Amino acid sequence: MAAQKNVQEEVKQNQYQGEEEEQDEKMFEGDRSRWYTDTVLNAELADYAPVKGCMVIRPYGYALWENIKDALDGMIKETGHQNAYFPLLIPESFMTKEAQHVEGFAPECAVVTHGGGKKLEEPLFIRPTSETIINFMFAKWVQSWRDLPLLINQWANVVRWEMRTRLFLRTAEFLWQEGHTAHATEVEAEEEARKMLEVYRSLAEDWLALPVITGEKTDRERFAGAVRTYCIEAMMRDGKALQAGTSHFLGQNFAKAFDIKFQSQAGELEYAWQTSWGVSTRLIGAVVLGHGDDKGLVLPPRIAPIQVVIVPIYKTDEEKALVLGRCNEIFAELKKAGIRVHLDDRDNCTPGFKFNHWELRGVPLRLNIGPRDVAGNVVEIARRDTSEKIRGVAQAGLVNELTGLLSAVQKNIFDKALAFRQSKTVKAASYDELKKILSESNVFVECHWDGSSEDEGKIKEETKATIRAIPFAFEPVQGTCMYTGKPTTRRVIFARSY
Amino acid sequence: MAAQKNVQEEVKQNQYQGEEEEQDEKMFEGDRSRWYTDTVLNAELADYAPVKGCMVIRPYGYALWENIKDALDGMIKETGHQNAYFPLLIPESFMTKEAQHVEGFAPECAVVTHGGGKKLEEPLFIRPTSETIINFMFAKWVQSWRDLPLLINQWANVVRWEMRTRLFLRTAEFLWQEGHTAHATEVEAEEEARKMLEVYRSLAEDWLALPVITGEKTDRERFAGAVRTYCIEAMMRDGKALQAGTSHFLGQNFAKAFDIKFQSQAGELEYAWQTSWGVSTRLIGAVVLGHGDDKGLVLPPRIAPIQVVIVPIYKTDEEKALVLGRCNEIFAELKKAGIRVHLDDRDNCTPGFKFNHWELRGVPLRLNIGPRDVAGNVVEIARRDTSEKIRGVAQAGLVNELTGLLSAVQKNIFDKALAFRQSKTVKAASYDELKKILSESNVFVECHWDGSSEDEGKIKEETKATIRAIPFAFEPVQGTCMYTGKPTTRRVIFARSY
Repeated sequence: MAAQKNVQEEVKQNQYQGEEEEQDEKMFEGDRSRWYTDTVLNAELADYAPVKGCMVIRPYGYALWENIKDALDGMIKETGHQNAYFPLLIPESFMTKEAQHVEGFAPECAVVTHGGGKKLEEPLFIRPTSETIINFMFAKWVQSWRDLPLLINQWANVVRWEMRTRLFLRTAEFLWQEGHTAHATEVEAEEEARKMLEVYRSLAEDWLALPVITGEKTDRERFAGAVRTYCIEAMMRDGKALQAGTSHFLGQNFAKAFDIKFQSQAGELEYAWQTSWGVSTRLIGAVVLGHGDDKGLVLPPRIAPIQVVIVPIYKTDEEKALVLGRCNEIFAELKKAGIRVHLDDRDNCTPGFKFNHWELRGVPLRLNIGPRDVAGNVVEIARRDTSEKIRGVAQAGLVNELTGLLSAVQKNIFDKALAFRQSKTVKAASYDELKKILSESNVFVECHWDGSSEDEGKIKEETKATIRAIPFAFEPVQGTCMYTGKPTTRRVIFARSY
Repeated sequence: MAAQKNVQEEVKQNQYQGEEEEQDEKMFEGDRSRWYTDTVLNAELADYAPVKGCMVIRPYGYALWENIKDALDGMIKETGHQNAYFPLLIPESFMTKEAQHVEGFAPECAVVTHGGGKKLEEPLFIRPTSETIINFMFAKWVQSWRDLPLLINQWANVVRWEMRTRLFLRTAEFLWQEGHTAHATEVEAEEEARKMLEVYRSLAEDWLALPVITGEKTDRERFAGAVRTYCIEAMMRDGKALQAGTSHFLGQNFAKAFDIKFQSQAGELEYAWQTSWGVSTRLIGAVVLGHGDDKGLVLPPRIAPIQVVIVPIYKTDEEKALVLGRCNEIFAELKKAGIRVHLDDRDNCTPGFKFNHWELRGVPLRLNIGPRDVAGNVVEIARRDTSEKIRGVAQAGLVNELTGLLSAVQKNIFDKALAFRQSKTVKAASYDELKKILSESNVFVECHWDGSSEDEGKIKEETKATIRAIPFAFEPVQGTCMYTGKPTTRRVIFARSY
């Protein structure tokens, strides 16, 4: 048995080596480079798996994912999409049908060569994304304009063999949803791609309390096989950008590769116009890095697995009976009102230990209830986001009070993140200026841009920053490209990113 | 492009060859051997995938799965379990730790040998089930009796390289949930295994309207690595049995293989006691085969994606405006009342076509609404399960009427299946009698049994029947083993199965 424990230790060490250390890049001010990994592990969101680059999503992390998933699934269905499920394994020959797609994805695929004890005639790729297999099926299902639009979504696991992994942010296997649609016209497909980006914006801002920039990617950052890639980009607490979701207008690229043709109302045989779009468990990393602080997670109430935790405070057995009785009463009342509430009645740890425990896990509100509170029919409420304590809240109106506070916390977390991003967004008129800004700290840099993909590559090499988006919100303003000096109306955001 | 279409055709043909034809076994009376596959394909529950033995779950089938999943997920959480997610890929060395387990599963695994363009040092198995990887993590997490019980569930895809596949019933990849638990005592683990079997019984009977036999498997049919396997077995409309779910008491087999030890309250270091349990998308096959008839699916209202379909009936444009207006009104009213309702307002097909369309898809209730109904403020209701038509139902009390009818349909489908099973269950006192019975038709055969695993194997070879369960409901009654002639109190059920 000792030998087996050793195997575990060894595997664990390998995992840690597999992590990107980034010792040179402090997470926040102070020496906290390992803050992210420690927080994810200590809050029990995830753990390292014994397979290189893979993770285990633990119950608390999975409950967070379920809340995000439920919110998004509702919006996906409201916008007319239907869920379905397509195979995990994709024949090698499928991957090679769309030239750019195979170039982008084949190098990072996991490949099945044996099944049922035999070598397979054709290797099978574990899906890194499902455009190929889904569009193969679309070709079977789409015959006439009456079959369009075809609006499909899938919740699934995918595998991309990443070299440098980080829990949630970049793992070999991750969970996601991928939408795939086919339309009769270019205009409709373009509208769909934009509509789903708006759904993602709403998910990020209204649920995850993460303000995002919506915009288009440059050619260099485009999805392999797309005509245009739209994105939502969020700023993390260290000033770096995180791509939180993408929506692609695929044009007719996959329709031509997979022969998705339909008879139009005019009787012509035409190729379909398509989109695909996805967000993943990476969003959990975005929430951790977008709101976390010294004490650990700060979770937005709308997606928090536990919105309110009750901590009883007592010394004697008599007090314990009294206080726990009241806590149970209040627990039942809040649960009935639809609040996600937890009563921490553990007997083997102190209130102080419990405070830290739930602060690390980012629970938005904590109720402290002691004998005096019971006597006065009141509770004390502690806010995770502001550390504020509200004493002597009457038990009678508690549900209303908490409901109001949960909304206030949700709004405050969003406002704080937005103010932070605004304070960390600067303009650069020249490349020298951009380099100087980024040498001092991680920020979003707005600038005019008319460079090439090659220019972008050079800038990335020199500054580690890339163009995160050509924001929709930027009106055309005449100016000069900060790199080439050419006149242009296009403005972009440069930033270092996860 | 023509070449690509040919590839599709070819792949499709391969799939059909991959299907078990069973030309010798009629589904029901009459020549309907392909009834099952045709129904699944035509009702658009699923389609063949271009990977041998795999399927695509289409939106209608997936909506059915979502309803089953939601019902079960609620029960799993109510009984104190938490969802989590573990990796898809399992190192080869893990699979070999539990001797029986590897023997049972390794031959049917899909194996990843290459990742990121390189040959892997150790091959990775796509999970056929997750005991090994989950118990590796349990060993990390379990230290003290305070960490127990550990009650985890996972919703995931698994891959088992099956030779003879059939949509939903037996596919190389399928979706399922797998529960994995660790306990401090044998009694607790045994209670857990039985509790989850009871949850499965409730899912099958109360939601899927499928009466099931609960019982234990014989040694021969036990899960690879378990001490005892419990099961729910349902009878299909052709008299064959379908194993709809299993729950395993694992003893300390995996705890010893993966070194899951904890300090007991008495301070001793002990191995944990464990269970695992799962149901899969096979349940959709059970619903199709358990309730279907000549016209297609018959879906239990509690899991039906659409509970009520509205079909407008009109001839002139004037009638159309009138009828559609009323249909939209009723649609809104039913939707508001929480009924899953669909309005079939397609303009390019006749009411008769629509009737067939929705009958094939098993929608429990249909509202037919024509100009006369509008004038009289009534509707006509057609029941899928009995083909009964209820004319002149007042629109005023429609929601109440439909809610009552949905319950009645749910109950009737269950009662019908139970009566069918009872009519197809017979007793056999000798092996000759058993052979005679099974040569005439597929039924459940109750008999006394004291044979060996070898005896069971011989009987399977000769009759294609196996012992489906040692039912809990069978009280010990003294008798004689129908095969060996030895005295025994144990009674079992023999049947042919899917």
